[in-house]
Amino acid sequence: MKQFLSVSDVPDINALIAKAAAHKAAPFASSHLGQHKMVINLFFNSSLRTRMSTEKAARQLGADVITYDASGGWGIEFEDGTIMNANTAEHVREAAGVLSQYCDVLCVRSFPTLTDKEADYADRIMKAFVKYASVPVVSMESATRHPLQSLTDCLTISEHRRTARPKVVLTWAPHPRRLPQCVANSFAEWMQAWGEVDLTIANPEGFDLAPAFAPKSIVSHNQAEAFAGADFIYAKNWSAYDDYGATADLPDWIIDEQKMALTNDAFFMHCLPVRRNMVVSDAVIDSPNSLVLQQANNRTWAAQAVLGSML
Amino acid sequence: MKQFLSVSDVPDINALIAKAAAHKAAPFASSHLGQHKMVINLFFNSSLRTRMSTEKAARQLGADVITYDASGGWGIEFEDGTIMNANTAEHVREAAGVLSQYCDVLCVRSFPTLTDKEADYADRIMKAFVKYASVPVVSMESATRHPLQSLTDCLTISEHRRTARPKVVLTWAPHPRRLPQCVANSFAEWMQAWGEVDLTIANPEGFDLAPAFAPKSIVSHNQAEAFAGADFIYAKNWSAYDDYGATADLPDWIIDEQKMALTNDAFFMHCLPVRRNMVVSDAVIDSPNSLVLQQANNRTWAAQAVLGSML
Amino acid sequence: MKQFLSVSDVPDINALIAKAAAHKAAPFASSHLGQHKMVINLFFNSSLRTRMSTEKAARQLGADVITYDASGGWGIEFEDGTIMNANTAEHVREAAGVLSQYCDVLCVRSFPTLTDKEADYADRIMKAFVKYASVPVVSMESATRHPLQSLTDCLTISEHRRTARPKVVLTWAPHPRRLPQCVANSFAEWMQAWGEVDLTIANPEGFDLAPAFAPKSIVSHNQAEAFAGADFIYAKNWSAYDDYGATADLPDWIIDEQKMALTNDAFFMHCLPVRRNMVVSDAVIDSPNSLVLQQANNRTWAAQAVLGSML
Repeated sequence: MKQFLSVSDVPDINALIAKAAAHKAAPFASSHLGQHKMVINLFFNSSLRTRMSTEKAARQLGADVITYDASGGWGIEFEDGTIMNANTAEHVREAAGVLSQYCDVLCVRSFPTLTDKEADYADRIMKAFVKYASVPVVSMESATRHPLQSLTDCLTISEHRRTARPKVVLTWAPHPRRLPQCVANSFAEWMQAWGEVDLTIANPEGFDLAPAFAPKSIVSHNQAEAFAGADFIYAKNWSAYDDYGATADLPDWIIDEQKMALTNDAFFMHCLPVRRNMVVSDAVIDSPNSLVLQQANNRTWAAQAVLGSML
Repeated sequence: MKQFLSVSDVPDINALIAKAAAHKAAPFASSHLGQHKMVINLFFNSSLRTRMSTEKAARQLGADVITYDASGGWGIEFEDGTIMNANTAEHVREAAGVLSQYCDVLCVRSFPTLTDKEADYADRIMKAFVKYASVPVVSMESATRHPLQSLTDCLTISEHRRTARPKVVLTWAPHPRRLPQCVANSFAEWMQAWGEVDLTIANPEGFDLAPAFAPKSIVSHNQAEAFAGADFIYAKNWSAYDDYGATADLPDWIIDEQKMALTNDAFFMHCLPVRRNMVVSDAVIDSPNSLVLQQANNRTWAAQAVLGSML
Repeated sequence: MKQFLSVSDVPDINALIAKAAAHKAAPFASSHLGQHKMVINLFFNSSLRTRMSTEKAARQLGADVITYDASGGWGIEFEDGTIMNANTAEHVREAAGVLSQYCDVLCVRSFPTLTDKEADYADRIMKAFVKYASVPVVSMESATRHPLQSLTDCLTISEHRRTARPKVVLTWAPHPRRLPQCVANSFAEWMQAWGEVDLTIANPEGFDLAPAFAPKSIVSHNQAEAFAGADFIYAKNWSAYDDYGATADLPDWIIDEQKMALTNDAFFMHCLPVRRNMVVSDAVIDSPNSLVLQQANNRTWAAQAVLGSML
């Protein structure tokens, strides 16, 4: 792979899942791949899981890692032709060009504004780094997608499915803040591209994801109906795509035991961090069917599979 | 050791000191212990000495290290059953559980509030990480104790003692800020548990440490009397335990040459950072009897002994 | 080398350039030099290129690295004899002494105030660390000099020169902020000491560098005249030395194609970050004659040559 920005960069999803599983079984078996290689992790937004799992993955491949937190503000200029006499101190042409001198793989995290839909969905920061970097770029979450999380989720589902073609429900859940659509977009995109699950997306009216990610045929506005017979419940809040960035106070959408009882003894999944008793009840997340820690663990192997494909 | 939070976690203090001394003599002799292992250092409060010495120790054991500075605010929820609709974004159950997926030893630093005695002395943050982590937890200083510093101090005293049972004085010293009681608590606790020194604690009236750490029989309110015949003077400021967090402007408690003249040519010790001419005079800290840099050096070997026991 | 603060610490510039070139040709050929060694990079001011290239250099030499960002404020006391009852929490005697316990080479970055010429040109922070450290100190830019950049520039010029003795022009360029004189001072100092180029410094009236760096005989206030026949144009803004820290709004000093046409098909150099269409036009920095990315790359090899000489 020359870049890892979305599922469309992956030639064979099952092969990549298998690679992740192989790293999980033998974390250091490929530690020659990163020998004398450098991975730079560039964060425009702070991170815990992504940072640690990506660093760990790189090191298990034998590579060195430099993590650079640019969340304090680096002042990068993205427009071409500007007279840079104001707040930006470096153009992305130089930023990406320079970082490419120092590493073999460049991992970048950025977030959406949630105020400018067009700019967010153009994925300006990530695209600019891809354009001007001379090394492979890995998205550690962009304004619209979070592909490392989705690969993780494929691995987790493949490890726990009890049928060849499980029913998977991606459900909106309540949250007090405005959150990006990235995790939900990517999860929807990967589940459909993977083709090994039946995906239903349950969300309130007004919270449909962008049509490119969520065709109307798989969207339900009735959470209880969607949960019926589900094998996996994947909970996540996201702000509205249509009324861009809007939120709603809908506590009834919480995932609790009553709703889980509607399912086929479904596993509960969430990418974390999660707000307890807001998104999901204690009883559900603390139940044996909760896979949230296994997902966090699988982030390492997903990252290792992606980095390993590039090094 | 499955955890390192206080002296009571140490089965044999002299054996641990001997281990630290062995690492000091041959820093890389145990570099197989950490092979393919990961240590995470999690700082809720900033650090220089602790961070560097712990990282160095881990690397000398052959382990990888990720240092995570959460002092900017991570927003961890510690209460159970809360509806997390406010400022906390992740429950410690997930935080500790996730971090445990990424490492073999989890080192945590937190500080007291100095306003809520009960909460501080319950050592909520450290205890919660111990409860929910699935890997060994090392305290890099908690709200009430600083055991890595105390092990360091044992090593330093054992290297410099001129008699089998030296007289050690832990003395309060002036400081312009309100400081935790951790270093003093731990030092008192370790010296008593070690049993190889005669400990006297000198502090102003109103600044007695918590009774669990400082039995009245070894506390003196007369600094000059306490210094008589001392072999080691260990200086440290702490805020009051009784009138919790209170300070006092008592410049006469400074450690200067006049007071050191009362001792048995005592060594001067301090955990650093130290405010010169406030806590201790230039003449004392710059004298050949000052062990402050040796103490800083010994932090590495103490950390290596503790991590090495866990890896 | 026991320290690397200015060109006068370098016994043989060409030998050091050759060493950097050798590391560039075989980055890991000297990875035994840093075996079981530690490099600490201490930043009092933030950094991208310097941090990454220095870390990379150290690791390629086989050394471990700890990068410590003290830009948030560490509160170091530099005066002797002070009663430290105010905002400084640690004296540089202890700070440098402690850090020396943890590493084999200490790299330090600090910046000038640009308000107190005397203090800046005394290079107080760097000098204090040199005085109290017990290990070699490397300047990663001080209040007055940036020697790693200059060594990089020597390497870059030596790689691209088409004649034995090229004409090099260091030219002032416009910038909206007040910038240090460090890069310009060091470049001037190194080019003169190297003795293999003809150096001209072009700057507006009032922007002459300190006489110790820029003898009047090589300074021109006419940019066009200076550019005539130049083989290398090295652009950089700096604030005034005489009217200390002053700036001027002189957009005509921009480096554009018209001015480059006056040269002998000169290469364009800049240490980055650079403000496009302010310092230099897009056409010039995007031309094949632009060496800015090669310079960024060469930072690694310059750092490796310096660290390698000390480890």
